Amino acid sequence: MAETIFSKIISGEIPCHRVYEDEQVLAFLDIFPLSEGHTLIVPKEPAETLDKLSDQASAAIGRVLPLLCRAVMQVTGATAYNVLQNNGEAAHQAVRHVHFHIIPKYDQASSHESGGLGIGWPAKKLDPERGKTLAQQLADAVGS
Amino acid sequence: MAETIFSKIISGEIPCHRVYEDEQVLAFLDIFPLSEGHTLIVPKEPAETLDKLSDQASAAIGRVLPLLCRAVMQVTGATAYNVLQNNGEAAHQAVRHVHFHIIPKYDQASSHESGGLGIGWPAKKLDPERGKTLAQQLADAVGS
Repeated sequence: MAETIFSKIISGEIPCHRVYEDEQVLAFLDIFPLSEGHTLIVPKEPAETLDKLSDQASAAIGRVLPLLCRAVMQVTGATAYNVLQNNGEAAHQAVRHVHFHIIPKYDQASSHESGGLGIGWPAKKLDPERGKTLAQQLADAVGS
Repeated sequence: MAETIFSKIISGEIPCHRVYEDEQVLAFLDIFPLSEGHTLIVPKEPAETLDKLSDQASAAIGRVLPLLCRAVMQVTGATAYNVLQNNGEAAHQAVRHVHFHIIPKYDQASSHESGGLGIGWPAKKLDPERGKTLAQQLADAVGS
């Protein structure tokens, strides 16, 4: 995998505002935050997208997510937040090394600017027959 | 914690289009999908938001995310996707039981409608001094 700004942060070649580190995971502030406290969590294992990450490295991120979310809420006072992980340019991935965002969302009563993640939600209703077929295909793919 | 549609799906009281299940995790199709293959992953442990979920339950979700992302890509042909987890009404949480979305993003060459998650990204530049202070506060909160 090609070097990225995140692999250089992990190796120490580029500095970061570090929040948390263990053997498998590094968390630091996004220097282009969507809101105050916007934090990134990256696996030390190099993988471009989540589907290419090992189960162990992904579990290690899962394990520290609640702790990091609590820290962000405690320090910023945010009561709402999004956890987002983008894969592929079409899905807004900017750095080709897996990263999870914790993005606080502030209401207007907060002293912070509102900001945060903008969400568009063009939901449709799932056709039940299509759902049945698709779920079976996915279950087969998981089991294969 | 109050019952939700997801706790009723977990207990079997309400049916779902099941994709994956183990002792700690259930994955099924969102019946109001943002795009073809939109899948939800929920912990069986009841928790309203990610900060209230146990590390173990969160790790269990982390562990199966790569597998489920691969299955969604394989079956739908999507090459880009977002993983999203919303906490709090202001952050677009609709059901008060932790859930991770896998939302495929299709380009115009795809046979699927484009759809998917709409993302607004009002980024600003982090002031380095503010970043230093904030990262230290967060690191202290993580360690406390």
